[in-house]
Amino acid sequence: MSSKSSITERAAVAKSASLQLAAAKTKAKNAALTEIAKTLERRKADVLQANQLDLEAAEKANLAAPLLKRLKFDEAKLADVCAGIHSLINLDDPVGRTLSAVELDAGLELYKVSCPIGVIGVVFESRPDALVQISTLCLKSGDAVLLKGGSEAAQTNRILAEIIAEASEAAGMPAGWIQLLETRQDVAEMLALDDHIDLIIPRGSNEFVRYIMNNTNVPVLGHADGICHVYVDREAELDMAVSIAVDSKCQYVAVCNAAETLLVDAPLAAEFLPRVRAELEAKGCHLKGCEQTRAIIDIEPACDEDWATEYLDYILSIKVVDGVDAAVEHINRYGSGHTDAIVTGDKDKAEAFMSRVDAADVFWNCSTRFSDGFRYGLGAEVGISTNKIHARGPVGLEGLVIYKWKLLGKGQVAADYAGPDAKKFTHKKLR
Amino acid sequence: MSSKSSITERAAVAKSASLQLAAAKTKAKNAALTEIAKTLERRKADVLQANQLDLEAAEKANLAAPLLKRLKFDEAKLADVCAGIHSLINLDDPVGRTLSAVELDAGLELYKVSCPIGVIGVVFESRPDALVQISTLCLKSGDAVLLKGGSEAAQTNRILAEIIAEASEAAGMPAGWIQLLETRQDVAEMLALDDHIDLIIPRGSNEFVRYIMNNTNVPVLGHADGICHVYVDREAELDMAVSIAVDSKCQYVAVCNAAETLLVDAPLAAEFLPRVRAELEAKGCHLKGCEQTRAIIDIEPACDEDWATEYLDYILSIKVVDGVDAAVEHINRYGSGHTDAIVTGDKDKAEAFMSRVDAADVFWNCSTRFSDGFRYGLGAEVGISTNKIHARGPVGLEGLVIYKWKLLGKGQVAADYAGPDAKKFTHKKLR
Repeated sequence: MSSKSSITERAAVAKSASLQLAAAKTKAKNAALTEIAKTLERRKADVLQANQLDLEAAEKANLAAPLLKRLKFDEAKLADVCAGIHSLINLDDPVGRTLSAVELDAGLELYKVSCPIGVIGVVFESRPDALVQISTLCLKSGDAVLLKGGSEAAQTNRILAEIIAEASEAAGMPAGWIQLLETRQDVAEMLALDDHIDLIIPRGSNEFVRYIMNNTNVPVLGHADGICHVYVDREAELDMAVSIAVDSKCQYVAVCNAAETLLVDAPLAAEFLPRVRAELEAKGCHLKGCEQTRAIIDIEPACDEDWATEYLDYILSIKVVDGVDAAVEHINRYGSGHTDAIVTGDKDKAEAFMSRVDAADVFWNCSTRFSDGFRYGLGAEVGISTNKIHARGPVGLEGLVIYKWKLLGKGQVAADYAGPDAKKFTHKKLR
Repeated sequence: MSSKSSITERAAVAKSASLQLAAAKTKAKNAALTEIAKTLERRKADVLQANQLDLEAAEKANLAAPLLKRLKFDEAKLADVCAGIHSLINLDDPVGRTLSAVELDAGLELYKVSCPIGVIGVVFESRPDALVQISTLCLKSGDAVLLKGGSEAAQTNRILAEIIAEASEAAGMPAGWIQLLETRQDVAEMLALDDHIDLIIPRGSNEFVRYIMNNTNVPVLGHADGICHVYVDREAELDMAVSIAVDSKCQYVAVCNAAETLLVDAPLAAEFLPRVRAELEAKGCHLKGCEQTRAIIDIEPACDEDWATEYLDYILSIKVVDGVDAAVEHINRYGSGHTDAIVTGDKDKAEAFMSRVDAADVFWNCSTRFSDGFRYGLGAEVGISTNKIHARGPVGLEGLVIYKWKLLGKGQVAADYAGPDAKKFTHKKLR
């Protein structure tokens, strides 16, 4: 995998490979995935050694402990990614599914068939296991991929990409379907290649994702903010509401599906707020509240900016609202369309909330932390999307395919279906 | 429908209306559609009078006859759009369909449910009937819409939009779900509103669509070029090949699904080219060819630019290629991903062509002219997309919806599914 050629040349190679990969049979793709897993096991020592170099460089550079932990790629991580590949092999091929079949007229049959998107550009964070997960998802969905990982993981990423390329090509996949980018300049060049790249999936900080979205004509799938809400309705069961609020905020604060704002229905506030405050503060969570909240519990005031802030930390803003309509209005104004939950015993209110909150994931009586591809049972995920088109929420294999229309005829021409003696279309469902 | 407020304000009104429209029941939406059709019939005189003003102005401005024909909105056109609304009422509601249902654990159920996209911006050509078709498609799919039609049709569009707004609002739809834009400046302002507008569908000239694509961060669905190909393979039946080539080029030259290039397999060229030339020239079609073509039939030379040109006229470029692989390569290099057809008696070659040509519509033994929402049986179409994500080819109601994930629990929290005593997810299909 030479990094000598320009990104444009390499994207052109990927594009050309993608056209061949689109026609690859399920069996061939699964055989290549098996070969990748085998080769990763066989070349374990090379992988661990490369990772050791990254770890040593990171320690010298005084990388923070959580980052070091993410960077580490040991035997356990390798076993995990290989297990992931084997689950992926067992998933249905997302390509070649007939989504609809209609007879337009006798002997003129229209099939809507799923197919790969083409070339995907993915920019991801420092975990090297993400490289294996993303590239194998792309292989299964028949897409070529340009990958750029964290620079801290450069050595590990290089050996992993090399193994995946060599093993899959040895198993018959087209050369060049996987391309590793290594610098920010590479990414900047990729953003300009809307002729060769069909979709960009950026994962990382809010600022980084916004930079990508604002600097390319290629469609971008992902999310910048994750400003998630828990609304506790007057019909909520109090213990459940406390438990969901605490889990949504504190189970893992550094992630996009953690709650940032708690909305409390006014009639419940006096009883609920002191209880939830005690539990949240016991977890080390710092609270900020609106005036109505502060009239009940003595916490720091929240300002307008707080409602639009993704803390990614042990900080929670609290607002008292008057009923489900006011909650929905607040969420649609300040939320990021990621994940929002209602706690209530009233089914009608839950349904109104779920249909009117404009978010990828709308939950009733459970924690916002469940919005995740693994928990949803999608297998690995390529990312979480707050887009309004194509794919929304956790995105697995299905987000990596689109469809084409295949029309199979026996010589039919449009002129026969026009004018005074026009033949009629039958539009009969074929299955 | 005041045009006094700014486009930003009006987009905000549409956004707010879209959140209510998303929760509208099928029955209510269909009742509103019925009311729109009734009111159009009742106010027929007002509509025809407005159209008369547009026609008079257009005649004064010496508009070309085909444009005048498109602009005309008479009793027959009105009857057509009303019939269209009644067919739309009979189509299934695209909103609220359960796309998947999985139990994550006992009492924790995940539903993937189709929902409206939100606010759609549509810019369309001079036909006023398009305004009725597009806005009623949006109403059925629960989307708010900002519409900008051709300025020649200003009076007709204004009365139609007024009737649709008043009739639907009287039937309980949220005020402001339909907004009529009237100037190019309005469109330019709309392109900047990525906070309020979720999808833009431009219809019109290549240059116009490119201008839209290059000047907005809002996702754009549509097509700029329609460079469609017919490839005649050595295994083609000659009569069928001639008939498909002629229909694909000449049945209606001014449209995006008309063929612009004919590719002929080398072994068939000597026999096929003279025959197809005679038929095409009889229709008044001007031919340009590669050197190999010109060695057989004496026509004007084609240059490299021809392969990338959408003539939209009685002009066809012809190239001799060596087999299906060379045809696929030419199409993937010069085509626009719209519609490409193969004529062959060999099923394997047809399948290879259809899986390897990277286009929205890939046809076997039929004319490219069939790629159209009405012919596909989708009802009316909002446009034809050469995008690689979300929706491809003719786009009807299904392209106007997306989905949200609804997770219904009984108080579950993520902490119970983590750590040493983690509960396991069941991931059991519910239907």
